[in-house]
Amino acid sequence: MSKFFTNRYQALTPYTPGEQPRDMQYIKLNTNESPYPPSKKATDAAATAAARLQLYPDPTYKALHEALASYHGVTPHMVLATNGSDEILNFAFMAFCDEAHPALFADITYGFYSVFATLNHVPFTEIPLKKDFSLSVDDYIGKKGTVFIANPNAPTGLALPLSEIERLLASDKDRVVVIDEAYVDFGTESAVSLINRYENLLVTRTFSKSRSMAGARLGYGIGSPALIADLNTIKYSTNPYNVNSMSAAAGLGVMADEPYTVSCCQEIMKTRTNAMTGLKKLGFEMTDAKGNFLFVRHPKMSGEAIYLALKKRGILVRHFNKAPISDYNRITVGTPADMQTLIDTLADILKEIK
Amino acid sequence: MSKFFTNRYQALTPYTPGEQPRDMQYIKLNTNESPYPPSKKATDAAATAAARLQLYPDPTYKALHEALASYHGVTPHMVLATNGSDEILNFAFMAFCDEAHPALFADITYGFYSVFATLNHVPFTEIPLKKDFSLSVDDYIGKKGTVFIANPNAPTGLALPLSEIERLLASDKDRVVVIDEAYVDFGTESAVSLINRYENLLVTRTFSKSRSMAGARLGYGIGSPALIADLNTIKYSTNPYNVNSMSAAAGLGVMADEPYTVSCCQEIMKTRTNAMTGLKKLGFEMTDAKGNFLFVRHPKMSGEAIYLALKKRGILVRHFNKAPISDYNRITVGTPADMQTLIDTLADILKEIK
Repeated sequence: MSKFFTNRYQALTPYTPGEQPRDMQYIKLNTNESPYPPSKKATDAAATAAARLQLYPDPTYKALHEALASYHGVTPHMVLATNGSDEILNFAFMAFCDEAHPALFADITYGFYSVFATLNHVPFTEIPLKKDFSLSVDDYIGKKGTVFIANPNAPTGLALPLSEIERLLASDKDRVVVIDEAYVDFGTESAVSLINRYENLLVTRTFSKSRSMAGARLGYGIGSPALIADLNTIKYSTNPYNVNSMSAAAGLGVMADEPYTVSCCQEIMKTRTNAMTGLKKLGFEMTDAKGNFLFVRHPKMSGEAIYLALKKRGILVRHFNKAPISDYNRITVGTPADMQTLIDTLADILKEIK
Repeated sequence: MSKFFTNRYQALTPYTPGEQPRDMQYIKLNTNESPYPPSKKATDAAATAAARLQLYPDPTYKALHEALASYHGVTPHMVLATNGSDEILNFAFMAFCDEAHPALFADITYGFYSVFATLNHVPFTEIPLKKDFSLSVDDYIGKKGTVFIANPNAPTGLALPLSEIERLLASDKDRVVVIDEAYVDFGTESAVSLINRYENLLVTRTFSKSRSMAGARLGYGIGSPALIADLNTIKYSTNPYNVNSMSAAAGLGVMADEPYTVSCCQEIMKTRTNAMTGLKKLGFEMTDAKGNFLFVRHPKMSGEAIYLALKKRGILVRHFNKAPISDYNRITVGTPADMQTLIDTLADILKEIK
C-alpha cells in the first residue's frame, strides 16, 4: 500500500479469482468456463467489429439492447449491457444500497457480493443457509434491505423455484431484489417472467457460461425501465463505453445462433448427470447442483486434500477454505472426456488412501 | 429515477459522450477517433483470442503488462491495464482522493473529471486556465489536493512542457499528480520519463487515439509499484477481469506493430498542420493544439452556429456550450480528404453570412 492510498479503501479485501497456474497444462475445472468454443457467429461478428476498432462503440448499444429485449420479451429500456455481470452487480450495489438500505445475501454464495458491499461502504448481513445449503426466502422476508440471491446459487448449485422468488418479491415491494442468474441456462426457471409485474426486481445475466464467452466480459441486467434508468445514471458516470465493440458484436452473433447455445447447455446437463452418477459410485456426496458445476465431498478425504491431490495430477477444481463448505469442492462440468479423466483420477486417489 | 435509487447518487450529472446521430452518414470529427483502421496485427490477434473466448482472460494480464512495461522502460508491476483510460482515471479518484485529499483540475479540461469526483463524493476545485487557455502549474503549487492534468489538455489541445510537470511534482511529494496522456502521441513530451524519480506520479494512457482502438476500450496507468498496487486493490474489488481477452490481445498486436502507429501519428500531425493553415486562411483563430484535434473559433460566427451549420451539411464536430469556450469547436483531425471537405464546407458557410 502506498502512503497515498486513502483511508476509504484500506479495509478492502479484494476478490480472489480462480487460480490460473502456468507451471503445467491443467484440465481446468475451477472457473466454470464452458468446455465448448464460442459460436462461429460470435467470432465472425467479433472479427468484423475488430476491423472498425478505430471507432468508439455506440454508447447506447442499441442493436445489442434490442436483441436482448427481444430475446426476453421486454422493451430495450429494460436491459443494460455491462462489462461482465460483475459490473451490473456493482452498479446495483451503488444504485440500490446505502446506510439505510443494507445488503442482504447468503453466507455461502458468490464471494463478490461482500466485496461489492465493502467497496461501496454498504452495511451487509450474511444470512446463513440451512444445514443442507438450501435457502429459505422466509429468512429474508421482514428484514430491511436490498436482497441479492444467486439462482442457482454458487458454489452450492442449489436453485430456488420461481414461486419462492415471487413470494419474496411480493412480500415487500419497497425494496429491490436482485436475482443473479449467471447459471440459469443449465436447468433453472428464470425470474425474467416476473419483470413486468415486479418493478423491484432486477435480474442479472452473463454471456460467460452458457454462451461460451467468458473472455468477452459481457453481462447485462433486466428490470423495470425505472431501475434500468438508475443503473444508466451510474454507467454514464463511470464508463459510458463500458462494453467494447467486439464483445457487443459477439453477443449479437451468439444470440443469432441460439440452437448452438441450447445444444451446448443440453450437452453440459447430460454430462453433469453422468458425472454425478460416476462420482456417487466412488462414494462422493453432492448437492442437486443446477449450474455447469458440481459441489461434492467425500466422507473419507478432506476437501483440501482432494483439491491438492487433483492439482498434483493436473486437474484444477475450486476449493473454498471456509466453514461449513471446506469439505467440498466445486467442480466445473467439462467435456465428457474431462469428466471421465476426473473420475478415473479420483478413483486412483481414493485407492491410495484405502 | 426509481423510488429505489439511493440518495447517494441522485445529484449525479452523467458525462455526455459525443453524439452519434443515425439520421444520415456524417463525416465524424467529434470524438477524436483515428481516421485510420487498426493495425492488422491488432485485428489478427483479436480474432485469435476470439476463438478461445470460452475462457476467462488472465486477470493479471501478464503478457500485456510485460509488453507495456518494456515499451515504457519500467517493470510490469508499474503498469495496470483497464477498460479504457476512463477506468484507470476512476480508480485514481477512488484510491487517491477523499475529503482530506480533494481533487484539483482545470475549469476547462476533460469533462469526466468532475463527474468522477461527484461519483466518488470527492470535493473538487476547478482551477481557471489563463485567458489564453494555458495552464500555470503555479496555480496548483501550494494548494492541497490530488492533481489531475490532461497533457495535452482537451479540448484546448495545449501542452505543458515536461519541466513544468516536474516542477509541480517536486513541489509537493506528498500528493499524487495524475497526468492524463490520452493525446500525448501527437507531439507532446511524455511524463513517463519521470516515473522512476517521482513516486507520486501516475500517468494514464489510452489505445483509443494514436493506436486506432477506441472500440477496444483499452487504457492503462503507469506509476510507482506502490501506486499501482493500490489501484490493483481497487481493480480486484471491482472487476478482476476488467479487460476482455480480445482487446488485451489486440493491444499486444498493435504494440508489435509500432511503425504503423508512428506513421499514423505522423500523418495526423501533418494533416493537423495543413488543416490549421487552411482554416487560418478562412479567418479562423485557434490554439496551438497538440492532440489529434483542433480548437477553433471564427470572429464572425458563433461556435454553436458553426457547429449547427456543419451538422446540417453532414460534418459532426464537438461544441461545448460552456463559457468561456462556447465560441469554439473541437474538430478531430481526420483524413486529408475529410479536412479538405471540412475547409470547403466552412468556406461555403462563411460565404453565406457575408
